[in-house]
Amino acid sequence: MLSVLRTLSRALSPQKLRHLAGGHRRQSCAYTSVTCQSLEDCLVLDCGGTSMRFNYVWLRDHCRSAASYNSNTHQRTIDTGSIDLSIRPVDTAVQDDHLILTWPGGHESKYSLNWLAENSYETKKQSLVQPRILWNADIYKKANISSAKWDTFMSSDEELKKFLQNYLLYGIAFVDNVPATVEDTEAVVKRVSLIRETTFGKMFCVSSDISGADLAYGYRDLPSHTDGTYFQEPTGIQVFHCLKRDGTGGRTILVDGFYAAEKVRERSPENFELLTRLSIRHEYIDNNSSHKVHFEGIGPVLNVYPWNKELYLIRYNNSRKLINTVPHYLLQQWYVAVNDLSTELRRPENQLLLKLTPGRMVFLDNWRVLHGRESFTGQRELWGCYLTRDDVLSSARCFGLQA
Amino acid sequence: MLSVLRTLSRALSPQKLRHLAGGHRRQSCAYTSVTCQSLEDCLVLDCGGTSMRFNYVWLRDHCRSAASYNSNTHQRTIDTGSIDLSIRPVDTAVQDDHLILTWPGGHESKYSLNWLAENSYETKKQSLVQPRILWNADIYKKANISSAKWDTFMSSDEELKKFLQNYLLYGIAFVDNVPATVEDTEAVVKRVSLIRETTFGKMFCVSSDISGADLAYGYRDLPSHTDGTYFQEPTGIQVFHCLKRDGTGGRTILVDGFYAAEKVRERSPENFELLTRLSIRHEYIDNNSSHKVHFEGIGPVLNVYPWNKELYLIRYNNSRKLINTVPHYLLQQWYVAVNDLSTELRRPENQLLLKLTPGRMVFLDNWRVLHGRESFTGQRELWGCYLTRDDVLSSARCFGLQA
Repeated sequence: MLSVLRTLSRALSPQKLRHLAGGHRRQSCAYTSVTCQSLEDCLVLDCGGTSMRFNYVWLRDHCRSAASYNSNTHQRTIDTGSIDLSIRPVDTAVQDDHLILTWPGGHESKYSLNWLAENSYETKKQSLVQPRILWNADIYKKANISSAKWDTFMSSDEELKKFLQNYLLYGIAFVDNVPATVEDTEAVVKRVSLIRETTFGKMFCVSSDISGADLAYGYRDLPSHTDGTYFQEPTGIQVFHCLKRDGTGGRTILVDGFYAAEKVRERSPENFELLTRLSIRHEYIDNNSSHKVHFEGIGPVLNVYPWNKELYLIRYNNSRKLINTVPHYLLQQWYVAVNDLSTELRRPENQLLLKLTPGRMVFLDNWRVLHGRESFTGQRELWGCYLTRDDVLSSARCFGLQA
Repeated sequence: MLSVLRTLSRALSPQKLRHLAGGHRRQSCAYTSVTCQSLEDCLVLDCGGTSMRFNYVWLRDHCRSAASYNSNTHQRTIDTGSIDLSIRPVDTAVQDDHLILTWPGGHESKYSLNWLAENSYETKKQSLVQPRILWNADIYKKANISSAKWDTFMSSDEELKKFLQNYLLYGIAFVDNVPATVEDTEAVVKRVSLIRETTFGKMFCVSSDISGADLAYGYRDLPSHTDGTYFQEPTGIQVFHCLKRDGTGGRTILVDGFYAAEKVRERSPENFELLTRLSIRHEYIDNNSSHKVHFEGIGPVLNVYPWNKELYLIRYNNSRKLINTVPHYLLQQWYVAVNDLSTELRRPENQLLLKLTPGRMVFLDNWRVLHGRESFTGQRELWGCYLTRDDVLSSARCFGLQA
């Protein structure tokens, strides 16, 4: 049984996850029965009961020999454009857990069966890119996830890896006991990855004292939303650290958007599909003397990988959307679908309520977890910043985590 | 005739463009004949022969009254989820170039006809988001575009606007007479927008002296490609300034990817469509002691807006692609299609050859224009940086340019 062949499951159990995240992905294993068959249009490889089909041009194009691929830089050196599109191997063999093809002219390509299985379409369409544990308030609380502790976090790679694993699985992760200064907050963020500078700066402050017109400022409640929907790529990770707080109310509301979206998918695959298919425009316009910007981001509310339908991004901000790219005859059903999603996002049992206090930093996967807040009184100085998702996923992958 | 109703054209003439870019978009005009009809599932508005259909929930959701919309922050304040999905206006009128709807309960919505026309699906599907002039070497040379001059560029908003207009139309723009220092280079970039920091830093140097393993380093020729295909959002703008140069060869090769892709679309709409539909993975792995990263970006080679099929991104880097998300039965045709595109990209007549010299900065739309270089001898110190597309488009929109 190939370790890389996993059943696609919408929400995984912690037991399953421990297995998946434990670095078993590239484990080598001996194949007891392998057969190989050359058909007219593809090569069929049968490994221990799993059948995979490979296009011949793909096989030549993905040759890992030194003449075709630089394994130091992980770059292809063969020119795909020079491959004969009717190419077929003249000889095919399986030996020592490797497939060996000989091409016209004599060039030999050797692929490990593990590598082929890992990169076959048949595996990918049944695998998750990023295993996750979806949650409502109850599930999250019962999981009893421990926060990272600042002093250990700043020095121990094991602590950082554990933090990143929690982040990948749940879309939120905490660091506790952080000194309540902007500088220390920034240092914690940089331990994870680069800060994404935006028009709001690198580190920004959402303060009740600022009389900014945006809904995020002031004392009102703020419905749960995705930040930066008006960027073509919404901001990947959002960090918050509340450096000053007195008064009442103002708890932070967190909702697992994927948990809500999967409820919609279960109930109505048609509604789910419509939310993945129709692209919506979001905009941010500021025309003050001190801040002139005009951003437009375009994309569906729900974004799934096309080959396995796995969710990877929810883009949900009602206040910023402007719909002008959808024909009227699809809009009625789209509104039904988005209202269905809104209903899920607003269920009290789906909302995790947090009191952010000085010393406690939270990292949110802004592509998955929506955030909002209750109305409040008193002083509240919330510092934050954005990170690009690519950079954080890169940090995680370098620790051997699956993302 | 509505000025916002434009025919979708793949490549525009400079004459047409001057009209489009001249700020006519929001021009007010009186409508001589307007009829309005309430059907069961939509409201039909006929303005001077142009028929537009609006869904009723959409109309209520996009009400621009103070109770529904904050025109200071351009944010919706009505809760879409609270709108009755079977809502219909009880009264409909057209008055002074405005549509006025009265809803059950008495709330009145007033929309300017210009705003409705601009935001109707019928307009959007016939309009370009960003007008462009597609080019091969000959077209670009004959257009005789002037470069911005450093001293004027740094102080005059008119010069910056002209530079941005050239950038939007052609995907490349130049600033000349820049002092050949990293600091001055950075200052020119910041005049346009924010620098996107990546794992390579803010300002980076591609030098022949560095014995880096990546293909970009060293003296070899480098086929034309998109940078940062391994980011989920490829880097938007690439800036180059050659600060030191002696020796022979090493001209920069620029190719308008959209010109090439439109040739494929003309010849074979099926090939073009396949390149827009199949998502391909690109990866960048570095595992040195000094630089550990693992990036993965996923998306089609050609990216079009779904409602008008306008190209907005070409993601083309043969050396970094890894195909494992496409079934074998589509791969053969995909390889045919991508080879067709490669053939166009490589035609000598499509390649603009530039000698980058100290003092001359070039800004490339990395989502459109591919870059490469000839092999060379001698010393070559090329400094560069990336900008996020959103930030540059925002700068352009704030000047009233269409993007």
